[in-house]
Amino acid sequence: MREFALYSRKGRTDSRFTSLREAGRLDVVHECIVASLFLSHGIRRNVVFHILLSGPPMPPLHLKIDGATLRNVRTDQETWKVILKNVLSGKFHPGVSVDKISFEALLKAKADEASIYVLEEGGKDIFKVAIGENPFFVLGDHIGLPKKVEGYALRYGEKISLIKQPYLAASCINILNYLLDRKAAI
Amino acid sequence: MREFALYSRKGRTDSRFTSLREAGRLDVVHECIVASLFLSHGIRRNVVFHILLSGPPMPPLHLKIDGATLRNVRTDQETWKVILKNVLSGKFHPGVSVDKISFEALLKAKADEASIYVLEEGGKDIFKVAIGENPFFVLGDHIGLPKKVEGYALRYGEKISLIKQPYLAASCINILNYLLDRKAAI
Repeated sequence: MREFALYSRKGRTDSRFTSLREAGRLDVVHECIVASLFLSHGIRRNVVFHILLSGPPMPPLHLKIDGATLRNVRTDQETWKVILKNVLSGKFHPGVSVDKISFEALLKAKADEASIYVLEEGGKDIFKVAIGENPFFVLGDHIGLPKKVEGYALRYGEKISLIKQPYLAASCINILNYLLDRKAAI
Repeated sequence: MREFALYSRKGRTDSRFTSLREAGRLDVVHECIVASLFLSHGIRRNVVFHILLSGPPMPPLHLKIDGATLRNVRTDQETWKVILKNVLSGKFHPGVSVDKISFEALLKAKADEASIYVLEEGGKDIFKVAIGENPFFVLGDHIGLPKKVEGYALRYGEKISLIKQPYLAASCINILNYLLDRKAAI
């Protein structure tokens, strides 16, 4: 299994929005969903994507999208606006779940079964790291990880870097999927 | 310089649309624009992104986005809906231009100055190819390159592959940028 966790500082925690962008940049979350879970005409069944929404009105909220059970989806923003609005208002969508767990509690629960990595430009070069079984990658959104959250994640994980340039979160996810796919293909 | 060219089979060639998705999947074009030209909080000044629009009502149309002169942009879909509608109705936006050149003519013009590569799962593994100066990468959209267009591109270029799985076009662009950035950083 392969997991990604995006910390969204401003992502809205209810369904009262008309555009993903204005809902605390849930459009960035959408891009990361596509990067983590979609191939061309297919879903990555071995990927789980977590989003930690920390925006108003009732943070924190943990959204989990499980490629193994995800159904009735397409890649476009409009489709995901509807799905996110639905699950944030308590409706069901296959493969998408919501709970009130905090990031700290999620990381603690994962620490036993997964290898946790925090993505940051200053981390150790990924080509010099032997990525473990069941990797769990922590990423910040366009604002970056709060220091407190990063500190917590580093109790359980290691700081790694793709390159010394600041990439968009969705780009990082695409690249991580690629590096792991190549590794698996050898 | 680094160039990407996306062949969009259905991308609309006028500004009469209300959603990018319904304009022949211009939302896919938007994702590729972001992947090719944007870092976190920055623009890749060394990248040019070409889109060959082949949808109604008056194909072909060549849209060129030049990172060197691109201004007044953000990454979100709404921003790019406005920019694309503007340039498709003849208005000016810095760094974005439109002309009636065909894909064939564009490739022919590039063949002298650039190293042309056509991205396809069946191509030669990119790790076994010495990517030349000024690479120019040709990609299909979600439907894929028409055989005729591919044949034309291969007169001037080489078929290369990132991996044997079919990735989304925007994912391919993110990965290509990464591989070239790493090469440049060594």
